[in-house]
Amino acid sequence: MATDTAVPASSGYVQPEIDVPALTALLDGTYAEVRDLVRTNLAEYASILTDAEEMSVDDFRERVKDVVVEMAATGQTGMGFPEEYGGGGDIGASIAAFETLAYGDLSVLVKVGVQFGLFGGAILQLGTEAHHDAYLADLITGRLMGCFAMTETGHGSNVQALGTVATYDPDAQEFVITTTSEDARKDYIGNAAKHADVAVVFAQLEVGGASQGVHAFVVPIRVDGAPAPGVRIEDDGRKMGLNGVDNGRLWFDHVRVPRTALLNRFADVTPEGVYESPIDNPNRRFFTMLGTLVQGRVCVGGGGINAAKVALAIATKYAVRRRQFEATSDEQEELLLDYGMHQRRLLPLIARTYALHFAQEVVASQLHDVFSGVTDDEHARRELESRAAGTKALGTWHATRTIQECREACGGAGYLSVNRFAALKADSDIFTTFEGDNHVLLQLVAKGLLTDYASEFEDLDQLGMVRFVTGLAVETVIEKTSVHKLLERVRDLLPGGDQWDQEAGLLDPDYQLAMLRFREEHMLAGVARRLKRGMDNGMNPGEVFSRVQDHVIAAANAHVERLVLEAFVDKIRSQPDGDLKVALNLLCDLFALTTIEADRAWFMEHGRLTVPRSKAISREIGSLCRKVRPLAVDLVDAWAIPPEMLRSPDLVG
Amino acid sequence: MATDTAVPASSGYVQPEIDVPALTALLDGTYAEVRDLVRTNLAEYASILTDAEEMSVDDFRERVKDVVVEMAATGQTGMGFPEEYGGGGDIGASIAAFETLAYGDLSVLVKVGVQFGLFGGAILQLGTEAHHDAYLADLITGRLMGCFAMTETGHGSNVQALGTVATYDPDAQEFVITTTSEDARKDYIGNAAKHADVAVVFAQLEVGGASQGVHAFVVPIRVDGAPAPGVRIEDDGRKMGLNGVDNGRLWFDHVRVPRTALLNRFADVTPEGVYESPIDNPNRRFFTMLGTLVQGRVCVGGGGINAAKVALAIATKYAVRRRQFEATSDEQEELLLDYGMHQRRLLPLIARTYALHFAQEVVASQLHDVFSGVTDDEHARRELESRAAGTKALGTWHATRTIQECREACGGAGYLSVNRFAALKADSDIFTTFEGDNHVLLQLVAKGLLTDYASEFEDLDQLGMVRFVTGLAVETVIEKTSVHKLLERVRDLLPGGDQWDQEAGLLDPDYQLAMLRFREEHMLAGVARRLKRGMDNGMNPGEVFSRVQDHVIAAANAHVERLVLEAFVDKIRSQPDGDLKVALNLLCDLFALTTIEADRAWFMEHGRLTVPRSKAISREIGSLCRKVRPLAVDLVDAWAIPPEMLRSPDLVG
Repeated sequence: MATDTAVPASSGYVQPEIDVPALTALLDGTYAEVRDLVRTNLAEYASILTDAEEMSVDDFRERVKDVVVEMAATGQTGMGFPEEYGGGGDIGASIAAFETLAYGDLSVLVKVGVQFGLFGGAILQLGTEAHHDAYLADLITGRLMGCFAMTETGHGSNVQALGTVATYDPDAQEFVITTTSEDARKDYIGNAAKHADVAVVFAQLEVGGASQGVHAFVVPIRVDGAPAPGVRIEDDGRKMGLNGVDNGRLWFDHVRVPRTALLNRFADVTPEGVYESPIDNPNRRFFTMLGTLVQGRVCVGGGGINAAKVALAIATKYAVRRRQFEATSDEQEELLLDYGMHQRRLLPLIARTYALHFAQEVVASQLHDVFSGVTDDEHARRELESRAAGTKALGTWHATRTIQECREACGGAGYLSVNRFAALKADSDIFTTFEGDNHVLLQLVAKGLLTDYASEFEDLDQLGMVRFVTGLAVETVIEKTSVHKLLERVRDLLPGGDQWDQEAGLLDPDYQLAMLRFREEHMLAGVARRLKRGMDNGMNPGEVFSRVQDHVIAAANAHVERLVLEAFVDKIRSQPDGDLKVALNLLCDLFALTTIEADRAWFMEHGRLTVPRSKAISREIGSLCRKVRPLAVDLVDAWAIPPEMLRSPDLVG
Repeated sequence: MATDTAVPASSGYVQPEIDVPALTALLDGTYAEVRDLVRTNLAEYASILTDAEEMSVDDFRERVKDVVVEMAATGQTGMGFPEEYGGGGDIGASIAAFETLAYGDLSVLVKVGVQFGLFGGAILQLGTEAHHDAYLADLITGRLMGCFAMTETGHGSNVQALGTVATYDPDAQEFVITTTSEDARKDYIGNAAKHADVAVVFAQLEVGGASQGVHAFVVPIRVDGAPAPGVRIEDDGRKMGLNGVDNGRLWFDHVRVPRTALLNRFADVTPEGVYESPIDNPNRRFFTMLGTLVQGRVCVGGGGINAAKVALAIATKYAVRRRQFEATSDEQEELLLDYGMHQRRLLPLIARTYALHFAQEVVASQLHDVFSGVTDDEHARRELESRAAGTKALGTWHATRTIQECREACGGAGYLSVNRFAALKADSDIFTTFEGDNHVLLQLVAKGLLTDYASEFEDLDQLGMVRFVTGLAVETVIEKTSVHKLLERVRDLLPGGDQWDQEAGLLDPDYQLAMLRFREEHMLAGVARRLKRGMDNGMNPGEVFSRVQDHVIAAANAHVERLVLEAFVDKIRSQPDGDLKVALNLLCDLFALTTIEADRAWFMEHGRLTVPRSKAISREIGSLCRKVRPLAVDLVDAWAIPPEMLRSPDLVG
């Protein structure tokens, strides 16, 4: 009922009809075939969703392992590895496969991520041919299970400070791996508690008494199922979710591994004990090594976005079946989705999910290009890392928020495990933390923006960053982002002159983009100015940073939201005219305007939004919701989530 | 480090020191002894927190039942019942006991709520002496377990529309209870799947062919552990959380109960089949019956607030132990709580928790007075119902948000079950839905505001409300809340004249209250005007309501936030001068200003906040966070959560 009167006939607007398969094809993009393979596999193993509820933790771990190994046999999980070892030789395909897997049980997803992304990725990216020959073929099939032992109890985000030490013993030509303190035990390591036979261990390398920073080593942790000599293993126990993944702790007590256990793509130790690396600067070396692992972030971001799709599909289908209260007539209660508030709760989340989908497509494509050597220069790598960090942060927070809203929108029914929200919520919760805590990732994004990707600064640690942005180079930043220059740049964005942004159509994507660009650049300049002012006042750099930190995070968020909108707008512009384009434009407008609305206080505070215009945006959002309302089911159907993955027979049936 | 430079010495501000036991005494209030009894019981049964993880669903249900019955023996759960039946005869004490129980396992809490609050409350409030004599003594001890069968699969929020029918058979002098459709099965009923022997069943009463609306009946559902004849019982199965509570579904196939099974305080049927009630208006009768059950909402709101305290206590203690990144010095990494962003994430949540605590104290006290006959008039009941609905909605949303933020603030460690967030998050999730969906509750609050408690309108159902506010009486509402009158009232609020609110100190509670009052009244007037305009334009009332619905919810939220601030300010004003008062004032300011900041766009849009003043508020919040920072641990310690309930040995130890 909310739709028939939504749009006056005089407006010329014609409600589009969505060709669902065509929209699915557009969303699936290059890797439609890969995504369909995963969809087929998901449906085949659908029983795992009930296993997750009914099995004991021990049994479920085994079940998840079995499914992962069986899926590996279909080629689904090895797409990113070289063909010569049995892989698919296509990074982009591997991301697409991983993302799609997020429609299903997330323990399977994360186990795949640990085995093939983290463990396999470390061997592939940090190792050299000998390592590839020794491990890749076996790990691709799942015959060899491994883990990625980076995080320590005392050091999650600050990897450079971790406490495990690997000392080179030239007499034996071995490294000696040692956990130096209780805080330095490896913790939360997936595959460690039960299944991994080897670990890629990150440790401070010491050669001839000199510390060379963090490096990675291949260390056997189990022999015939029992802990290897000198290795202690403890189970992390039950977790909020992902209980099909066996997370554990590792301690190393003078564990000896041969010299060749060092993953030596970026640094090596000669038999005599001479440290050698093609990268002179230790910080840069560290970040180069870490940079090769960016794939994990891209995967988690995509996984979060697709988990949100599952929640939205269920809540949307429920909202067009469930009636509650007689609002319009005495005869029949009203459908939930015909309530304005319900539209406001769900439809902007669908719009943002579409926006993030296309942003994720961009970062996945950049990843493919960089790691396939298409565009493998320093600048492309830095841009990829920043974009991966930002998309991961926004995508996973979006998942947490969306799953919660969808559960509440399904009322008590949403609380029953059969309706998937229980698993989605518990399993995806950690996405905002692992592969980089979201706040730390946004700081990383901000660092990149503040340094404007200047290569001499990119490898600073956090203290270095603080000192950099608060001291040495802050003048440059100020110069680059000065309010004066900023206003000029914003003026350049406004094709119609100074006041254009006060007059432009709210649905003009150039207007929407100009708003988000202005916000980003202004926030960035504000951060730089505050940092400088604090330093000028003689405050401790850490104190200055602490006080500006929320602005740092906000600036990074503004940057990423701008990239997301650009990705959406670019995608639409590449499409032929027609109903599909009209529908996507509605979603893009809804995403852009709700993004501006959410931060409208900031825009008013900074002279970019008048009160009448701010109110007009809110009205326009209401109107957009009423236009999107009749498309809602098609929009979630276009994600082509296998029906078995939705479960919820009473809600979506 | 963030604290020593937080306040210039010249300001005259002296950082307060908190006497933790004194603050605990202030928070515990009248019922300190009761709360301590529950704390002792919680510590004694602390093993239930691990049982929740380790036991099968079946075993855990039995365990929870046993704990509930054992706690009942201490008098803890029966405090609200008359002493003659073995109760404590003190409603206020029963609320205090229930709230405190929320520090522990929430299955125990909810099982207590089902047995003593819902089931016991219905017998007590809807029944008469014969029912009391028959059931109260046994249910207070837990010898008789019961359930509260109101919700149906097809009708959660809209209780008046439920489909179960109770037909009076004058020949047999019995009621015949029947589930008339699949949608009319009772669903999500706590205690139904396993433990309840009797149910209070809500059904449409039909007498002599006439429908008399929803009434409650005592119906045996089990005989010697097996379903009673004509009763079908199904298990709702595994849920996101609260798996110690056995929720189930009930179907009735012509189940006969004696005439005396009708809980007949507000209506009765004579043996001959004549329907009689002291309340003529059927709607009013229905809402009178429902109104007696308001205690459940008060309890859930308090439970949510206390669950949030547990999460905040863990996250705060972790944040003063955990270090990450060298920010201030090379020697030592920085404590999490010395980062500005971390302060911004946690400290306003502590402030809001304090505010809600005192608001909850007010509503619990009103409940006590109304149900103890101290102030049992129509107006007091209406005010209580509105306040209970609003506090429940804000308190439970606060719990969901706070638990999530605290989990993220504890990183990967927060994901391990041992650290309580897993259980807190899963168990408390449904609080926003049960005992009234939060959005529906806020609509209820708004209805009360729009009708200004005019007694002739209070019993309207939602359609009635829509028609009322959009039609018949809207002129009155407009009159009462016209912009003209509103401005006069706001002017009355401003002791220093028209511009006073632009000049008043940000930390002046009168200023803060005036801001929240203005927002509430303006939003309310806006809703009324929009409703009227829609009707004047000839739109369908349901359509009009749908378009205004988000404003309705916002107005109700504004109203409740004003009440919460008033409760906090009143509490502080009643305190003697001293450090405790200074500390509470910091928290109150932090709550008030973050509340204004969160809606600062609205205040700017409505001329109550200039841009410089809006920015000044954000700066002041930063300053307040730095002042609260050194008090944070004392503030969470004052909640006196038994250490066993925090678990998390590595986080808080």
